[in-house]
Amino acid sequence: MKANRIHNFNPGPAALPLSALEEIQENFLNFSGSGMSIIEISHRSKQFDDVINDAVARTKRLLQLDDSYQVLFLQGGASMQFAMIPLNFLSPGSSADYVDTGTWSSKAIQEAQIQGKSIKVVASSADKNYAYIPRNITFNKDAVFVHITSNNTIKGTQWAKFPDTKGVPIICDMSSDIMSRPVDVHKFGLIYAGAQKNVGPAGVCLAIIRKDLLDWIPDTVPTMLKYSTFAAKNSLHNTPPCFAVYTVDLVLKWLEETIGGLDKMAALNRQKADLLYDFIDAGGFYRATAEPDSRSLMNVTFRLPNEDLEKQFVGQALENGLAGLKGHRSVGGCRASLYNAVSLDAVESLVDFMKTFEKAHG
Amino acid sequence: MKANRIHNFNPGPAALPLSALEEIQENFLNFSGSGMSIIEISHRSKQFDDVINDAVARTKRLLQLDDSYQVLFLQGGASMQFAMIPLNFLSPGSSADYVDTGTWSSKAIQEAQIQGKSIKVVASSADKNYAYIPRNITFNKDAVFVHITSNNTIKGTQWAKFPDTKGVPIICDMSSDIMSRPVDVHKFGLIYAGAQKNVGPAGVCLAIIRKDLLDWIPDTVPTMLKYSTFAAKNSLHNTPPCFAVYTVDLVLKWLEETIGGLDKMAALNRQKADLLYDFIDAGGFYRATAEPDSRSLMNVTFRLPNEDLEKQFVGQALENGLAGLKGHRSVGGCRASLYNAVSLDAVESLVDFMKTFEKAHG
Repeated sequence: MKANRIHNFNPGPAALPLSALEEIQENFLNFSGSGMSIIEISHRSKQFDDVINDAVARTKRLLQLDDSYQVLFLQGGASMQFAMIPLNFLSPGSSADYVDTGTWSSKAIQEAQIQGKSIKVVASSADKNYAYIPRNITFNKDAVFVHITSNNTIKGTQWAKFPDTKGVPIICDMSSDIMSRPVDVHKFGLIYAGAQKNVGPAGVCLAIIRKDLLDWIPDTVPTMLKYSTFAAKNSLHNTPPCFAVYTVDLVLKWLEETIGGLDKMAALNRQKADLLYDFIDAGGFYRATAEPDSRSLMNVTFRLPNEDLEKQFVGQALENGLAGLKGHRSVGGCRASLYNAVSLDAVESLVDFMKTFEKAHG
Repeated sequence: MKANRIHNFNPGPAALPLSALEEIQENFLNFSGSGMSIIEISHRSKQFDDVINDAVARTKRLLQLDDSYQVLFLQGGASMQFAMIPLNFLSPGSSADYVDTGTWSSKAIQEAQIQGKSIKVVASSADKNYAYIPRNITFNKDAVFVHITSNNTIKGTQWAKFPDTKGVPIICDMSSDIMSRPVDVHKFGLIYAGAQKNVGPAGVCLAIIRKDLLDWIPDTVPTMLKYSTFAAKNSLHNTPPCFAVYTVDLVLKWLEETIGGLDKMAALNRQKADLLYDFIDAGGFYRATAEPDSRSLMNVTFRLPNEDLEKQFVGQALENGLAGLKGHRSVGGCRASLYNAVSLDAVESLVDFMKTFEKAHG
């Protein structure tokens, strides 16, 4: 493999398309004939305008957004969104529904509570250590929004289908599966995603907001915490994270021009995940931790017969060019993250290694 | 010049050391033997720990920080700090002093006011369009902090010496002159700086906080807006902007190992600024806009006899490999930003061009 690169199953920051990395590298000292690096050009320049406008246009095409939505680039990761959402959209007297599918949605709930906002946790899978996505949820009719996390990187669960909220806009943390499959955006008031899994490097958060939600925002919210500040200036109120936006643009270019869009990406992601889950299910040595109907196509979480074997597995995998297979420190076990840029070839190599390891230790 | 690079006088994002850019480029597909790009490795990895710890250690050495200070890497730029400062440090019943030296300090004042916090503007240079730094300021004894902006990129002014606040900690926006000269840090409770002028790319904000200020922060502040969140986890509460932190580390390495520290950097910056100001002052064609005792060594703002000539000047300079000389859109005129990575050679080339332009149009 070029430049001695390895198969990267990291949960995020994660594998990115080699073609995007190579384009960054090639142009790094002189971007677009400017005589400057992409990290030295002005965010008010024609060159950077072209970058950010291209990234917005690609996002709109890939997700088939109409003009009722706007694409924003924010900072602070999804964690900052946990705070911005109640600040912007929950005024006194209004309440929102939250679904708790673990870790990230729990943190989102906690941030609303820190602000003393009125929210209701309408469903939770805490009873089974978040190994499933709650079913048949009853939402409150007077909720101003419903908050969900589309994919839980740690527990390895994912909403296979988004819930019917009877017209209440969904606000969704899609950090770990954005652009991995087509989405009917019309259900959503706000989609946000830390870029560092499927669409770019850490340091930028992609947000897609239904424009009418911008009218909900009180004047008392600090300027940099209002979505409307970013919406009014094409994300250029102050200096944006230029390099991260540039990288997102190149990743989206790969997604459109090399992969061929979200339908094709989804088919490939399904193929990768099926390969791994089918192998795991076929034997008794490895055991998938999420319930079958709630399994993530992005993060395949699994256990081995004991923790000692899990440690050996992760270490030997790395020696064999397969990196990032350790489970999150809060749950242990193993995890293979199969984001967009992880190739089918990488998953095949992983399964081959898993077979070999099982033979030696099973 | 390598890769057809030009002299970059941009106000930020701005010129960065070529050695840092080349190191990024060389290792971009395989960082530190990991087989992954710096933008693909985990922020929880040994490799990234080494990066962030090195950046912290270099900051401490360069600014001679003792253990009463902590170095943080935040997101959202200085603009987010304008909101975080009153959120963290102004509780009901307490008040702070702000000095208004234009644009950025005005915005900092505005953010405190949006939150309804008690602040007093104890000095302003608005009477002369912010062409000077206020002198002989009387601060309030009961102020919990004094906020200043060390350098105004737009008006071309800079505090030559920091004010005596009689022990009240100064909170200072040093975005545009951090690491350009030695600073007696003991006067400061908090120093913050968007990296994209002297120390790195856009997308990370360096903060240096006196640890006792962490005890002031109320529990009601959202997690991602509390300095204590970042202090407790070495800036790794959530995924930091890894690439930007890495680049800052390389720029600080250049500052320590190639330049030789802040005394040497300050001498070189003085030499560069003197060269340009002396040339401007010697003739009558160009006119510096800031009052002599308040002139910035970082941003030299000047006018030509008329706006038409200014437009020609900026355009012809670019044709001659001198970029970024247009004044900020809010004030017009011309501006040469002479940040750390702008070489003496670049300033000599600029002065040569200015002589030629004056001969043709003077």
